[in-house]
Amino acid sequence: MTYCVGVLLDRGFVLASDSRTNAGVDDIATFRKMTIFEKPGTHLIAMVAAGNLSLTQSVVSLLGEWANNGEPELDLNQTKTMYRVAHLVGRAVNEVHRLEAEALASQSIEFNPTFVIGGQIGNERPRLFHVYSAGNFIEASPDTPFFQIGEIKYGKPVFDRLLKSSMPLAEAAKLILISFDSTMRSNLSVGLPIDLLCYEADSLRVTHLRRLTDADGYMAGVRKQWGEGLRRVFETVPPPGLDG
Amino acid sequence: MTYCVGVLLDRGFVLASDSRTNAGVDDIATFRKMTIFEKPGTHLIAMVAAGNLSLTQSVVSLLGEWANNGEPELDLNQTKTMYRVAHLVGRAVNEVHRLEAEALASQSIEFNPTFVIGGQIGNERPRLFHVYSAGNFIEASPDTPFFQIGEIKYGKPVFDRLLKSSMPLAEAAKLILISFDSTMRSNLSVGLPIDLLCYEADSLRVTHLRRLTDADGYMAGVRKQWGEGLRRVFETVPPPGLDG
Repeated sequence: MTYCVGVLLDRGFVLASDSRTNAGVDDIATFRKMTIFEKPGTHLIAMVAAGNLSLTQSVVSLLGEWANNGEPELDLNQTKTMYRVAHLVGRAVNEVHRLEAEALASQSIEFNPTFVIGGQIGNERPRLFHVYSAGNFIEASPDTPFFQIGEIKYGKPVFDRLLKSSMPLAEAAKLILISFDSTMRSNLSVGLPIDLLCYEADSLRVTHLRRLTDADGYMAGVRKQWGEGLRRVFETVPPPGLDG
Repeated sequence: MTYCVGVLLDRGFVLASDSRTNAGVDDIATFRKMTIFEKPGTHLIAMVAAGNLSLTQSVVSLLGEWANNGEPELDLNQTKTMYRVAHLVGRAVNEVHRLEAEALASQSIEFNPTFVIGGQIGNERPRLFHVYSAGNFIEASPDTPFFQIGEIKYGKPVFDRLLKSSMPLAEAAKLILISFDSTMRSNLSVGLPIDLLCYEADSLRVTHLRRLTDADGYMAGVRKQWGEGLRRVFETVPPPGLDG
């Protein structure tokens, strides 16, 4: 499976993706699921992907080919608004559907590529989109400033309880990584390394990009500190009276 | 949807069920999903159910009819071991499948009744089973001393992190209710009241049975204390370094 998150903040956005793929528990591999289109000073667009890897990779490959074939309206790097970026990604999803869906359906394989796209172009504000497998898409707003794709449930409660648009980037990154820890603990098909991108509004370039691996210790620290902290909180909550 | 949990402890077991049913978000109702077969001094058997309400109710009705038709091997109240109870519930599930599945399939309705059953009969130890919609079942063991059915994901991380078989009943009940709070916060189709049953090993009767409603305040307290506690823990976890 996969777990990816995008969080839109007052001061920018944060995207993260795991890198585990599996075709059954006996076929696990590591693939990067984050793609970045950057032209410093002009735009920064980043997307994370969930769903069948052959499909999400095809969408990304197609966007790459389109960017080089000379038609400005198909070139993600010449797009003027994030709305048009989301639309273009949706078009690529539709094109992959046209090419692949029938053959996949004949083998009962679901057409399921989905994307979370964060970006800022020129003077537009930073924006965050969720593109579905039909190519349609929605945009994040302050009411619900995050999108999750893939294995979304185990890691959702911490967002529902703790996320605020006013958080600094680093705090949101921490919350995202706690959400990843909950997810990885409960579903083995989501796994390290995690690609983490932080984008500071109006910088128009990658602000921070980090790959968190087993080796660097941060995730192990989160697991330990969060787990021990929950245990302490658990002890402070009184048990229910059992005679009611 | 539904959320039900059973936890097997060294000192007994705890079962809990929500009571929300929905046939679409425009058709919400309250139904009890916990059934108790008790003969004080002889046995205490309790089951919670998830899946299509017409199917789970049919299974329970059938078990009730069987208990009164004079055939001892179909009478749950005359069963000698919890293994045979699980088997009998599985037989009732199979019988409902025989009666209903074809008509349901013709309208693309899934046959999905599942049950968690806790109980103790005579000198046997307390045991906990999970009966699937095919009538097959598994038994809890110290490695994984809990079963969830229905909307299981949002409430699983706290069990993965905090549950221990050595917990007192009241602590396990508290953990279950925290798990319910996480689930209800993230999925509106799970809702109060919650039926909570605690069984103390070798008592052979209901130890504590409580219905937690909006009115009694305990769940509101859990939400507040747990939410605030998580916020405090969150503040103590250092953010990731973002220059790596």
